[in-house]
Amino acid sequence: MLNILVAGLISLIITLIGTRSWILFLKRHAYGQFIRDDGPTTHHVKRGTPTMGGAIVLVAVVLGYLGSHWLLTLAGSMGFAGLDSSAQPLTVSGLLALGLMLALGAVGFADDFAKIRHARSLGLHAKAKLALQTVIGLVFAALALSFPDAAGVSPASPAISFGRDISWLTLPVWLAIPWILFIIAAYSNGANLTDGLDGLLTGVAAMAFVAYGVVNFWQWNQDCARQAEAGCYTVRDPLDLAVLAAAVGGALVGFLWWNARPAKIFLGDTGSLAIGGGFAAMTVLTRTELVGIVIGLLFVLEALSVVLQVGFFRLTKGRRLFKMAPLHHHFEMLGWDEVTVVIRLWMVAGIAIFGGVGLFYAQWVLAQ
Amino acid sequence: MLNILVAGLISLIITLIGTRSWILFLKRHAYGQFIRDDGPTTHHVKRGTPTMGGAIVLVAVVLGYLGSHWLLTLAGSMGFAGLDSSAQPLTVSGLLALGLMLALGAVGFADDFAKIRHARSLGLHAKAKLALQTVIGLVFAALALSFPDAAGVSPASPAISFGRDISWLTLPVWLAIPWILFIIAAYSNGANLTDGLDGLLTGVAAMAFVAYGVVNFWQWNQDCARQAEAGCYTVRDPLDLAVLAAAVGGALVGFLWWNARPAKIFLGDTGSLAIGGGFAAMTVLTRTELVGIVIGLLFVLEALSVVLQVGFFRLTKGRRLFKMAPLHHHFEMLGWDEVTVVIRLWMVAGIAIFGGVGLFYAQWVLAQ
Repeated sequence: MLNILVAGLISLIITLIGTRSWILFLKRHAYGQFIRDDGPTTHHVKRGTPTMGGAIVLVAVVLGYLGSHWLLTLAGSMGFAGLDSSAQPLTVSGLLALGLMLALGAVGFADDFAKIRHARSLGLHAKAKLALQTVIGLVFAALALSFPDAAGVSPASPAISFGRDISWLTLPVWLAIPWILFIIAAYSNGANLTDGLDGLLTGVAAMAFVAYGVVNFWQWNQDCARQAEAGCYTVRDPLDLAVLAAAVGGALVGFLWWNARPAKIFLGDTGSLAIGGGFAAMTVLTRTELVGIVIGLLFVLEALSVVLQVGFFRLTKGRRLFKMAPLHHHFEMLGWDEVTVVIRLWMVAGIAIFGGVGLFYAQWVLAQ
Repeated sequence: MLNILVAGLISLIITLIGTRSWILFLKRHAYGQFIRDDGPTTHHVKRGTPTMGGAIVLVAVVLGYLGSHWLLTLAGSMGFAGLDSSAQPLTVSGLLALGLMLALGAVGFADDFAKIRHARSLGLHAKAKLALQTVIGLVFAALALSFPDAAGVSPASPAISFGRDISWLTLPVWLAIPWILFIIAAYSNGANLTDGLDGLLTGVAAMAFVAYGVVNFWQWNQDCARQAEAGCYTVRDPLDLAVLAAAVGGALVGFLWWNARPAKIFLGDTGSLAIGGGFAAMTVLTRTELVGIVIGLLFVLEALSVVLQVGFFRLTKGRRLFKMAPLHHHFEMLGWDEVTVVIRLWMVAGIAIFGGVGLFYAQWVLAQ
């Protein structure tokens, strides 16, 4: 358990302290955000706030995750292993999830950078971005379905899962790969859309990753590979995924210090795509895809609001379902303060996350 | 477990929906808050915001707690008992904690009401208020140390506790009562002092009570009265305390919807004294007094900042340690936005709460 705490703490400290320097660096090089012209006009005052805050978050995640492994292995080799059985090698699942975050983060970074260079809000060509995201998602899905461990358990399973795999919903591989790809696309775009108000995505994602830290830890506690009891879980590397989730959660909490209103820095696509990808990886690799929809409810609602808005607009030839999409802009248009929208959506997300973890637990109780 | 969720849900819905009517009622009768003249001058714009929001929170807590018992007993009598073994009678511990909240809430209400009536910010005479609080605390302490159950376990124990009773710190009754009284006084004043910025106390307390819901549930799961295993807990009525904690947590989340910046209503002393008392009751009755200091760290820091400020001022004959006490005003004076202070202090409190629950868990692991 110590490895989870160490990872979270390292990441937390890095973003808490390092974000200030990152802001100064970005400002010195005038890497400010260009706010979209189709958002609420009140947001135009945010022009000039540095973006690409996701980069420091990713640095913190990598250092937290690897640093925790390194420190505990070192402690183990020095004879402190008895303190905790935490010293353990890196795992395929942890590295795959981290790799997905970094790859999508790199796409986001290219996009953020292009926006700044061309002094416009659009960034990479939409098609190039989509193609890159698709390739990354496909590679992740294919790799995650490979690498069985000694017991034959791969990082991802071809079955659709609720709180664990649903055996009668096991997909053939040619369907399982698009399904995983869809999950990644949905969450990375959902997180990207959620990232529109100071601190909104950061706060929601911090809670969601801490929740997945708990889920992973619980799965490790009840891992069939450790003790085959009723209700035990067939997952690969749950403890290491808990370490990664803690690193992401810690990094986001520290980043929120600077990203809460008034935001001194934004996550940018660098952060939002990586966070969405990391969340997708968590739901896939823990085999909690349907429970994940509840834990990630806000991402789903934000994405859905855009889909519905566009669909309704086309269907009715010009009428709107929301005053503005994504969802959070709708509430702003209703006259709520930006910070009121953020806090209330945090609450909605927090209740959903709590409910999602509750569902996961209830599923375990029923499996007893 | 169903009873915990039902209690939280009832309370949540009542404050989420009912607070609007309560605000309208208070406004119609012109029960607005008179802001202290010694706070930051920017707070003077808040004059006129209705106070006594704590009353709706307490109504929600009572209805959530009693409603959950009533509904599940009803479900049990209709033959649904097999669904969950949740149907259970009211307990001494639950009623004592609820009683302490209501009694302190009543003192706060008298104070809030006097403030409005006399159109000033001072309320009840400080001495009368202190005397009332002391009597209430003494009655609670005396009752909590009585009422042993069949196994001889009283709601409170005379021992000072970390994550459970520390046997070599068992106090004689004449010391245990003042100790419990001190805890109640510390937290009710700490919560009272914390309640100075929109949503600050509500958010922190919501997290703290949810955390105690988890602690109580865990204790119930490992209750020595149910199965005497290594590391089991000697507590009275943990499941019922979890129900109460969920009711308080749910009520506060719903209230936060209206109390977050810009606050449409304040908790008032009605709310803050009740919340502090309820928190004190949780730490005493779960026998997690020292862990409770970590979970309630923000209350402790806010109270400490006032004590230190006053002490330092007297000692140095006029110098100040903080720009202004309690703590949150200090950060405002540093030029932070009110909402930035609130969100950052929520984060500090959240990390402390997480750490406190972690300590509680670590103590359990060590007792295995």
